[in-house]
Amino acid sequence: MKSFLDANFLLQTDTAIELYHKHAAGLPVIDYHCHLNPQMIAEDYRFKDLTEIWLGGDHYKWRAMRANGVSEDYITGNKPSYEKFVKWAETMPYTMRNPLYHWTHLELSRIFGIDKVLNPSSAQEIYDACTAKLQTPEFSAQSIMRRMLVEVVCTTDDPADSLAYHLAIQAGGFPVKVLPTWRPDKAMAIEDSAAYNAYIERLEEASGISILTFNDLLEALQKRHDFFASAGCCVSDHGLETFYATPYTEAEIRAIFSKVRAGRQADSEELDKFRSAMLYEGGIMDARAGWVQQFHVGAIRNNNTRMFRKIGADTGFDAIHDHNFVAPMNRLLDRLNTEGLLAKTILYNLNPRDNELLATNAYNFNDGSTPGKMQFGAAWWFLDQLKGMENQMNALSAEGLLSRFVGMLTDSRSFLSYPRHEYFRRILCNLLGNDVENGELPVSELPFIGQMVENISYYNAKNYFGW
Amino acid sequence: MKSFLDANFLLQTDTAIELYHKHAAGLPVIDYHCHLNPQMIAEDYRFKDLTEIWLGGDHYKWRAMRANGVSEDYITGNKPSYEKFVKWAETMPYTMRNPLYHWTHLELSRIFGIDKVLNPSSAQEIYDACTAKLQTPEFSAQSIMRRMLVEVVCTTDDPADSLAYHLAIQAGGFPVKVLPTWRPDKAMAIEDSAAYNAYIERLEEASGISILTFNDLLEALQKRHDFFASAGCCVSDHGLETFYATPYTEAEIRAIFSKVRAGRQADSEELDKFRSAMLYEGGIMDARAGWVQQFHVGAIRNNNTRMFRKIGADTGFDAIHDHNFVAPMNRLLDRLNTEGLLAKTILYNLNPRDNELLATNAYNFNDGSTPGKMQFGAAWWFLDQLKGMENQMNALSAEGLLSRFVGMLTDSRSFLSYPRHEYFRRILCNLLGNDVENGELPVSELPFIGQMVENISYYNAKNYFGW
Amino acid sequence: MKSFLDANFLLQTDTAIELYHKHAAGLPVIDYHCHLNPQMIAEDYRFKDLTEIWLGGDHYKWRAMRANGVSEDYITGNKPSYEKFVKWAETMPYTMRNPLYHWTHLELSRIFGIDKVLNPSSAQEIYDACTAKLQTPEFSAQSIMRRMLVEVVCTTDDPADSLAYHLAIQAGGFPVKVLPTWRPDKAMAIEDSAAYNAYIERLEEASGISILTFNDLLEALQKRHDFFASAGCCVSDHGLETFYATPYTEAEIRAIFSKVRAGRQADSEELDKFRSAMLYEGGIMDARAGWVQQFHVGAIRNNNTRMFRKIGADTGFDAIHDHNFVAPMNRLLDRLNTEGLLAKTILYNLNPRDNELLATNAYNFNDGSTPGKMQFGAAWWFLDQLKGMENQMNALSAEGLLSRFVGMLTDSRSFLSYPRHEYFRRILCNLLGNDVENGELPVSELPFIGQMVENISYYNAKNYFGW
Repeated sequence: MKSFLDANFLLQTDTAIELYHKHAAGLPVIDYHCHLNPQMIAEDYRFKDLTEIWLGGDHYKWRAMRANGVSEDYITGNKPSYEKFVKWAETMPYTMRNPLYHWTHLELSRIFGIDKVLNPSSAQEIYDACTAKLQTPEFSAQSIMRRMLVEVVCTTDDPADSLAYHLAIQAGGFPVKVLPTWRPDKAMAIEDSAAYNAYIERLEEASGISILTFNDLLEALQKRHDFFASAGCCVSDHGLETFYATPYTEAEIRAIFSKVRAGRQADSEELDKFRSAMLYEGGIMDARAGWVQQFHVGAIRNNNTRMFRKIGADTGFDAIHDHNFVAPMNRLLDRLNTEGLLAKTILYNLNPRDNELLATNAYNFNDGSTPGKMQFGAAWWFLDQLKGMENQMNALSAEGLLSRFVGMLTDSRSFLSYPRHEYFRRILCNLLGNDVENGELPVSELPFIGQMVENISYYNAKNYFGW
Repeated sequence: MKSFLDANFLLQTDTAIELYHKHAAGLPVIDYHCHLNPQMIAEDYRFKDLTEIWLGGDHYKWRAMRANGVSEDYITGNKPSYEKFVKWAETMPYTMRNPLYHWTHLELSRIFGIDKVLNPSSAQEIYDACTAKLQTPEFSAQSIMRRMLVEVVCTTDDPADSLAYHLAIQAGGFPVKVLPTWRPDKAMAIEDSAAYNAYIERLEEASGISILTFNDLLEALQKRHDFFASAGCCVSDHGLETFYATPYTEAEIRAIFSKVRAGRQADSEELDKFRSAMLYEGGIMDARAGWVQQFHVGAIRNNNTRMFRKIGADTGFDAIHDHNFVAPMNRLLDRLNTEGLLAKTILYNLNPRDNELLATNAYNFNDGSTPGKMQFGAAWWFLDQLKGMENQMNALSAEGLLSRFVGMLTDSRSFLSYPRHEYFRRILCNLLGNDVENGELPVSELPFIGQMVENISYYNAKNYFGW
Repeated sequence: MKSFLDANFLLQTDTAIELYHKHAAGLPVIDYHCHLNPQMIAEDYRFKDLTEIWLGGDHYKWRAMRANGVSEDYITGNKPSYEKFVKWAETMPYTMRNPLYHWTHLELSRIFGIDKVLNPSSAQEIYDACTAKLQTPEFSAQSIMRRMLVEVVCTTDDPADSLAYHLAIQAGGFPVKVLPTWRPDKAMAIEDSAAYNAYIERLEEASGISILTFNDLLEALQKRHDFFASAGCCVSDHGLETFYATPYTEAEIRAIFSKVRAGRQADSEELDKFRSAMLYEGGIMDARAGWVQQFHVGAIRNNNTRMFRKIGADTGFDAIHDHNFVAPMNRLLDRLNTEGLLAKTILYNLNPRDNELLATNAYNFNDGSTPGKMQFGAAWWFLDQLKGMENQMNALSAEGLLSRFVGMLTDSRSFLSYPRHEYFRRILCNLLGNDVENGELPVSELPFIGQMVENISYYNAKNYFGW
């Protein structure tokens, strides 16, 4: 019997153990997509207690607590910090087999150096020990990143964002690259014309361009895109329910934009056309800038209206969607490709039933220009767990080139999530180790396989993004 | 090499063996959804031979026999009992790796105490031995249930049903709780107005209410709902091809009902609206009564018209559907939740590609009021097999709380199906045992894990349904 | 640690080893669906070098090379043969865990007798050795087929094809049966009326019938169908994006055909109706002839317009589609079945999310007339890999009768692909061996299980197709 979370956690063979410890464990972390708050990095934030750093903003844990029968008072409500933590500690054993169980104990072990199991009887001791550590400089936002060997993080930013904190971080000599990501979702969100016009005003302010027409919008976005590039940005991201590639004319798009700008609502066909135009125009900007474009597709969001009204978005009421999206996805990529303006692209699905769909369709657009140009992205959100990652890597292996995979990212809002890179690397090494020991890969190629582990853990991303 | 179906069947580790024998094997069975005939329980039915109890009404076996080249004469036709059995015995080896192979041998072993392998050479001996046993009181319907430690069963009943047999059973002192389930599918089935009107007449009779308007329908249903509650019912069930949540007005629904009541056919938009209204109204009734509502979604039924005309529904010509249903499902649940009238809910999918979809979306509506309020239901029908159950539990584990799962049900028409609970418990223990031995769960938490096995096998259902 | 690709490759248990070597290894190959060029067989083609036989026409390898950053010049371009091969050898290690890695080494080993690992350092030696062998008679097209114990191959042929090469092969005394397959995709392809009319002219020529009306078309097709039958054909095949079963009238179909024949374009509803009619009429022809009909469903093709314009179809820019197709599939099969004209049928999906869907729905139409009449077909194209085959066989096992499976086919354009039958048989034996050793199948039934391996490897296909 193996010990829980020991040095060879998830490594089932000697080859896996060797691959992990020799080729993966010591490499720096490139976290090319996350939701960290750049202000907290810039100000080298200090967390007041374990509840704040662990439960503040973590909708994964909130969902688990609600499912475990915990009242909202202890989740997003006003109960005292320690009482909230106790409710989490009580929930902890009930999360066995959920990724939260491994994440929690990896974070305790790798970041706080505590190898105890969290449950109601250890709650007080763990809370006190971690909270005490959080008072020390070694547990500031920047210190945690440095200790976790983070080399690059890409945050998620709106085109209207000033990037003031990114610039401050870069000016301040923090050795970790903290780069912005261009996430223009709001520039596409005409479904609520009032909110959209408010947003356009912010964009006008940020760009210094008065946005009356669709061409003005593109001009303003291009100006911000250039500014993002000047701040080190080299990657965009889109959070999409599905893909859009409805045929349209430029005149139609101009008319739709003007209609919404005049405060009227677009109908559903107009929404589709406008979104289609925006994805296309955004793709061109990214290609011309030499960026990587990312598409996170397949969430159904804000399903619980009562809670949305009470506590807003991103609070644990989102889930997996079931759109069939391959035809518009391919039309969008094909249109860009036909014009020679298809940027390096990473496609992420949230519904695991689409793993092979995405893995095969991404490869329709490789052109030999860059190894791994078209990427089937890492297992994301609800798929960011042991079997989810295995399935993603198995699908990628069977349908494409695992060797060219740019690997893991946390997608996290938390400074404690870096052990997820370790978790990913262990799973990767275990898959390859099993293959070697089963005679499915030649043991004589172990040097190449070791290099492949290093590449997927670190070098592929470094080269792909150009860092 | 392990022996077939021995004491440690499906248990691959010492921890699994300990968990199963110490925490699962001896617990009673709560079968909260099945299709048993209450009349046969009330009358303590005695089966005349092995063919009747095993092959009468079992469309799983019928499908297998048809696929194996057996003529319908030996399946639903008039061939003599033993000749039918011989065809089944000949088919048996051809079902290796199908759940029928395990089910059959578990039933032989656990119910008849026969540990032989069924094949053509053992057919006569097994038929004779089992048929002889069936002549004894130990093999009556009630005796089998008692010997299998059944504590509760919920049958599947129409709102117009008198529940006479349920009441008789309860009056007769049978120690197993035999409760009705409210299954109002026919009250929703306006697609055939002639059949629907015939049904409404039965409902009028059962309720004593003259049903001329949609409001009359709701009143009659509410009256029956109350009556079901008085007979111990605390759970509803819906067999749906997909979910319906098309916006409608009450006036529209009233008009659609009147149109169909007048003998005219509803068009497809009207069908959608009516079904949407019925699901919503049914959800309210269940919530007000404090019941659990169940949705079994995703079958495509009666696909073989020739056989449907010959032998009717539920005869082995149904299969898995491929609707995308998450948007209307969430709209229905959200509407009920917004009004504070969302009952405890169990969602069952028939297409395994939707496991993660359902597991994540169910959790959009947990509210902390009850642990495990929103359930991703057990692997059902075509998924009720080894890998189907593993996949369901793995998806539930990764996306939610396995610990709060209300566990297994047979969904069966047969009195012999209780060993499927044993089968489920073995699979559950094996998953957890593997995790512990692989170092993925802490061995120090074995007491909690043992309790978790007991909960999923028995106590969670007991508490959830309030028995 | 097992050696790579040794005698017990993929066989994890003693029982698997016994099953494979005793019951599978020596059996002939029936390759009932492939894309071999019959001219090359008739002329007993000799390949000039390893690049031609390995890289000419192999879009699997091309996709991998493009993804690995190889310029098109070395893929479909004009670079010298050896330079192209070197690029493939460089790509080879990067395909680890992709089926290409196993296929390549199996082909080297089983056909060329070379057990070296292909990588840049072995490239020259392997190229030279194989190219030398290709100069000898033992490596002609016919010789390879004979050495690989091929007994039957079915190529893929258009109704307008003269079948001259098939007839020549049959006349020439080649001991391998080389049979045509009726693939009428072009007769259905009215979406491009110019191309369609050009095709109809070829069909007029082949059939000697002037095709002015839809009835003429059916008459011409029936005449060719009879001719194919006379050349030994007993199987049809359809490459479909999805199924079509839109209700239509004969008058509508006649009008649509005439419209297209007059050079006008059909609209999308007309396309659906015409395709629906053609699938139905084709099904009748197959049933009356006593043939097997095959449906390969779910590819999205020619996604990369730029490359399609440059190098045409079937060059590595196709992928998996995500249509929901079960309702029209069942309507088509049900209509044929209702009229007593449903031929033996094999249904292949390309999206693995539809495995259970197809496995269950196929069985809606078994009628006891033939064991295994309705087949859930072998893992195909993107699914023709280790896990893809395991998943297909596990789904078939759980939902149907693995024992009645007609087994593997290569679907290949290459004379080197026969080791894929070995690969399949190993996977099959491994699944069964694991079950026996885990106590999930009785060891006492090993004689039956051995027969089952032989049947799935060879005899089931032989009996099903009537060879």
